[in-house]
Amino acid sequence: MGLERKAKVAEVALRCAVCALAALAAALVGTGSQTRTFFSLEKKARFTDMKALVLLVAAHGAAAVYSLLQLARCAAAAAWKGGSNGGAAVVAWSVFSCDQAVAYALMAATAAALQSSVVGKRGQPELQWMPVCGLYGAFCRRVGEGLAAAVAAGLAAVLLAAVSAFNLFRLYGGGGGRKSSAGAVSGNGANTW
Amino acid sequence: MGLERKAKVAEVALRCAVCALAALAAALVGTGSQTRTFFSLEKKARFTDMKALVLLVAAHGAAAVYSLLQLARCAAAAAWKGGSNGGAAVVAWSVFSCDQAVAYALMAATAAALQSSVVGKRGQPELQWMPVCGLYGAFCRRVGEGLAAAVAAGLAAVLLAAVSAFNLFRLYGGGGGRKSSAGAVSGNGANTW
Repeated sequence: MGLERKAKVAEVALRCAVCALAALAAALVGTGSQTRTFFSLEKKARFTDMKALVLLVAAHGAAAVYSLLQLARCAAAAAWKGGSNGGAAVVAWSVFSCDQAVAYALMAATAAALQSSVVGKRGQPELQWMPVCGLYGAFCRRVGEGLAAAVAAGLAAVLLAAVSAFNLFRLYGGGGGRKSSAGAVSGNGANTW
Repeated sequence: MGLERKAKVAEVALRCAVCALAALAAALVGTGSQTRTFFSLEKKARFTDMKALVLLVAAHGAAAVYSLLQLARCAAAAAWKGGSNGGAAVVAWSVFSCDQAVAYALMAATAAALQSSVVGKRGQPELQWMPVCGLYGAFCRRVGEGLAAAVAAGLAAVLLAAVSAFNLFRLYGGGGGRKSSAGAVSGNGANTW
């Protein structure tokens, strides 16, 4: 199996993983809620109570939809294999940029949500922010599961960003043999992989 | 100026930017403090009161040191230009991995700190977390300046990660002409840039 084919398979597999994991994370966090009654006062915990969780649901939902669209593009590209490829560089550049943006957005949203959740779980006594997970245990567990899926989706998106960087920048090889520093690999790297 | 030389110049410039901005962010956040007296009770606000700011200072401090080391490597590579290049792939792979890790770490730490700071500034009334910036205005402004530098350092690190991906993956080009999809660019891309 050639290097290019391996990259294609890895790309499709990673896009499926990002799509499934991001959708799972958004669904787990977005649908969780818990209602408790304190002295006849009913209070409901939802993800909208914490801005970082809203951001997480939005980012992961958008990433799932984007991955689906990209999978459709991959399928279309495979179907019309013999078509023109004059736009290959434009397509590779836009796919690369979008994949990078998705990877950084997922990592940032996950980091912000993790940060908020740690404060929610342990509190921040220096600022008199009290932990809330003692009251809403079931909701916190649900958010924890969602965060685990979000971290997995983020890691898949990071790997995918590397694969799409590979797909783009190898187009600019070929001139590597001109200078000494790149010559060691460009000669055989493409074949030994 | 050739493509490879442009990439080298961009790499050195971006490493300098990451080093300076990350050091600035860590210094601004790390050295800020404000003492206030409430009814004969003295309270001091420091970055250690907020876990996310500790993470920010640690991540950006480490990134600044790492960038310095990488600049030293660039200088050494420029000095011994005629040396052996059998390890080019190993070096490019490890530089690529480290640069990616730094970019994601800076983005994640900055996102977490931003999230914490927004809660510190506006509070989270749903959870009875009160804003603290009304009490420690000068400290909050200092942290805000640090966060601006942190965001700039993160963006420079993201660009740097892309340049180092370019430096690595172009080594695997050259085989691009075998398949139709890459042929459109690999022939002239390296020369027209």
